[in-house]
Amino acid sequence: MEPIGFETHPSRYRHWKLDVPSDGSGVATLAMGVDEHHPLRPGYELKLNSYDLGVDIELADAIQRLRFEHPEVRALVVTSGKDRIFCAGANIHMLASSTHPFKVNFCKFTNETRLALEDASANSGLRSLAACNGPTAGGGYELALACDEIVLLDDGSSTVSLPEVPLLGVLPGTGGLTRVVDKRGVRRDLADVFATLAEGIKGKRAVEWKLVDAVAPRSKFADAVKERAKRLASLAPADKDAKGIELKPLEAEVSADGARYKYVELAIDRARRTATITMRGPDQDVAGLAIVAAGSSWWPLRAFRELDDALLRLRFNHEDVGLLLLRTRGDRDLMLKCDAELDGRRAHWFVRETILNMARVLRRLDLTARSIFAILEPESCFVGSMLELALAADRRYMLDDPKRPVHVQASRLNGKLLPTANDQSRLEMLGIEEELGGMEKQPLDAQQADEAGLVTVLADDLDFDDTLRLAIEERASLSPDALTGMEASFRCVGKETMQTKIFGRLSAWQNWIFTRPNATGERGALSLYGKPERPSFDWRRT
Amino acid sequence: MEPIGFETHPSRYRHWKLDVPSDGSGVATLAMGVDEHHPLRPGYELKLNSYDLGVDIELADAIQRLRFEHPEVRALVVTSGKDRIFCAGANIHMLASSTHPFKVNFCKFTNETRLALEDASANSGLRSLAACNGPTAGGGYELALACDEIVLLDDGSSTVSLPEVPLLGVLPGTGGLTRVVDKRGVRRDLADVFATLAEGIKGKRAVEWKLVDAVAPRSKFADAVKERAKRLASLAPADKDAKGIELKPLEAEVSADGARYKYVELAIDRARRTATITMRGPDQDVAGLAIVAAGSSWWPLRAFRELDDALLRLRFNHEDVGLLLLRTRGDRDLMLKCDAELDGRRAHWFVRETILNMARVLRRLDLTARSIFAILEPESCFVGSMLELALAADRRYMLDDPKRPVHVQASRLNGKLLPTANDQSRLEMLGIEEELGGMEKQPLDAQQADEAGLVTVLADDLDFDDTLRLAIEERASLSPDALTGMEASFRCVGKETMQTKIFGRLSAWQNWIFTRPNATGERGALSLYGKPERPSFDWRRT
Repeated sequence: MEPIGFETHPSRYRHWKLDVPSDGSGVATLAMGVDEHHPLRPGYELKLNSYDLGVDIELADAIQRLRFEHPEVRALVVTSGKDRIFCAGANIHMLASSTHPFKVNFCKFTNETRLALEDASANSGLRSLAACNGPTAGGGYELALACDEIVLLDDGSSTVSLPEVPLLGVLPGTGGLTRVVDKRGVRRDLADVFATLAEGIKGKRAVEWKLVDAVAPRSKFADAVKERAKRLASLAPADKDAKGIELKPLEAEVSADGARYKYVELAIDRARRTATITMRGPDQDVAGLAIVAAGSSWWPLRAFRELDDALLRLRFNHEDVGLLLLRTRGDRDLMLKCDAELDGRRAHWFVRETILNMARVLRRLDLTARSIFAILEPESCFVGSMLELALAADRRYMLDDPKRPVHVQASRLNGKLLPTANDQSRLEMLGIEEELGGMEKQPLDAQQADEAGLVTVLADDLDFDDTLRLAIEERASLSPDALTGMEASFRCVGKETMQTKIFGRLSAWQNWIFTRPNATGERGALSLYGKPERPSFDWRRT
Repeated sequence: MEPIGFETHPSRYRHWKLDVPSDGSGVATLAMGVDEHHPLRPGYELKLNSYDLGVDIELADAIQRLRFEHPEVRALVVTSGKDRIFCAGANIHMLASSTHPFKVNFCKFTNETRLALEDASANSGLRSLAACNGPTAGGGYELALACDEIVLLDDGSSTVSLPEVPLLGVLPGTGGLTRVVDKRGVRRDLADVFATLAEGIKGKRAVEWKLVDAVAPRSKFADAVKERAKRLASLAPADKDAKGIELKPLEAEVSADGARYKYVELAIDRARRTATITMRGPDQDVAGLAIVAAGSSWWPLRAFRELDDALLRLRFNHEDVGLLLLRTRGDRDLMLKCDAELDGRRAHWFVRETILNMARVLRRLDLTARSIFAILEPESCFVGSMLELALAADRRYMLDDPKRPVHVQASRLNGKLLPTANDQSRLEMLGIEEELGGMEKQPLDAQQADEAGLVTVLADDLDFDDTLRLAIEERASLSPDALTGMEASFRCVGKETMQTKIFGRLSAWQNWIFTRPNATGERGALSLYGKPERPSFDWRRT
């Protein structure tokens, strides 16, 4: 199969229309008009604005471009370009015909896309409004839930619904159950009724139950949407100097064995079922106004966009790979200068967006269901924002050899600027409570890094290669399911947030349900959707 | 199959020895000496102090009796009565030969038992010390993790270990992964090494990694344990007037269709796949000293012990039942008087223990994987602590008929005294933030209860029966897996705690892993444990 790619551009969208007016309103519109004849893979039709991964890749691209290319946009109206349907959710036939790993990774990606919308609202002041101009079902309603506000057409037939439990025997897989109660504050017993009612809820009751913020009849719908969008846009005015930065193509060289970018390389070792991502640090000192001029070629933006693309390729195109090795290369001083610039100028909209993007990419790494080992070797550059790669890893292997010293160093970026999904710094997650613990002041050698609690396995020159090789072989031999469950536990030390509830509690239950005959067996509800036969259930409760 | 029963008594223990000395030390010892020839079901041997449900039922009984029958005990030493083994964890052959629903319910019960140990420490000042006098593996180490402190024998061979991931391809199922990082503060990368190292960790390194609090050689082990237990016992001195209350047998009449107790009845309708639990309120006004005299026949203790037993019978003996209907009967005034007594005298150790037990039983209800509807009808008595049953339900159906009025009323017990696993009151979970919202002052009729946000479905006399009947039929027709996942989400609104992480995140992943061929397939690691064949894995990561 052709590998899946994740880069696109509004000029190539098949399923969405992004409209950014130059009228100074600060309100953009993103209209879903899914081309049913262009699924990502042959075998199903994307009827009724239902979506597949291809549709969601465009959505993710649109949200990302709005933040970088159109910083003047302060409110985004998400609506449908079709009559009589907002969105029917994820395509059922696509889901029913997909492998289990694809289903799970598809749900994860769509969750990350919706969280990007919420991140834009919370951290960039880009508010969003779902203008549900027709029936809004399943994943369609979950997309609306990710927006700050929801307006529903009041025409006697447009409902919001989560029909997954009653119709398909699975959960709404994109955060719906969590957001209904934890974000919108729907009372949990009403949420129970709602999520078991295939036909959904409309009109006044949808407002009373807090499922939507407002309803409006057809004659007043456009005005109601416009007015709300205007108010949302006024909440966080755009920076005066904010002129967009074009996100240029990454121009990856992709092969069956990985992908090569300017700063990042993904190399697959199919025999060992491992992948190595090598990231190179900044190659020049870009500061002040030159940052804006550099635009998307500025190292922290380009390198982390490349890393993001590499992680998605790994997830979707190399399912058998169980272990990701992280290596870095680069000049420590240039890396520290770059981080100092990021920290010092973070009030600037472009620098802020660049940092927020780095944070999102690092969370994508945290949430990648592969074991992750970081290799701290002499040529490495685990410093500042690149140190986060090591801190995200399940283990850190560090060489302790006076003749070939390895150093790590923190920067202000390792504080709270690049938070995990449970809203901690990665140092905090390791129990290094006080911010940075002084480790930004000078480089730490292997012994010092070990004392600071940064090293999992310290090995001298004689042992390092063998220790690492054995650890890799051993890790690659363990049950991939047990590792996924274990890592999902250890990567969420401490408190949970709405995000981690979605990725932990909700997704873990969904993973289970996706494997159960009641959903995906021959007589399961998901398999039989749209067919005349009734599903047949094993009634035992677990 | 003979239904499983949950009542036992120290005089009948086969697997544990509870030693409560009368020397005034306040230190009791509970020694595990599993009789390998007495598994709960035939087909496996309980070697090496491995346990099954029968062993854990005795453990739960011992913890419960200590709190009620021996309030003078302030520290419990949990140790092994066997040489050269502390505990090998849950019996693998039992697990491998169990059905999926049994495995899941077994893990849930053992989790609840360990949480009872932590509840005793946090709320009753009964501290616990794991004296690991031999290898401490898997569930054995998880039992130790539930204790306040862990001392490990330092003899060159006694290790603590979580070998589930490397040996069995499943997770440690009793909170181990969560407690290692979130309770003991083991660094997450070291936890990763630990949980993939079949042979475990011993001696000084176990202390350095925070896996245990101390190690002691054989010659000093007994003294080290004694000293630590003495210090733990001194932390919360016993009430001077604390003389134990005997927990008398419940004397249930059990049949294939349910169980009948003094205040509680469990009735199974196999055709409809529903169960009805009817709970009757207090039948007399017991106050002051008479409470102690009444002992385990005092309503709040007896009725909630009966409810607990009924819930466990439902979980284990009636797997096909998907929906639990909750009904109450009783005198509202007597119920309010009883609650006033519970609230007013909660400084008394016996009243405190009774309230804590009610809270545990209600959490057992919250965590029961069956849909729960409460039926608020004219004869009902959803008042005070019995109102909690309705608040725990997924839905509340209330009759609105002036001729046959129904009333509900809160008491101080509905505040923070009976917290959920995520440490909220059940009213708070419904968004009724301020404590009780005034609803303890007077009874609310159906309209008032609805306005207060307590009613899911209000129906008048003409509609009530049909509405309820249809809702029951519809609920019983839905996929049991999807309902379990949905309810697990809606019953944990808001924050997560270590408890809810164990029951949500960890258990949901484990449920998934238990269904995967990599664990339980013919060539899965759990299925092949102890056999010469190597497991064969589907390497795709999800």
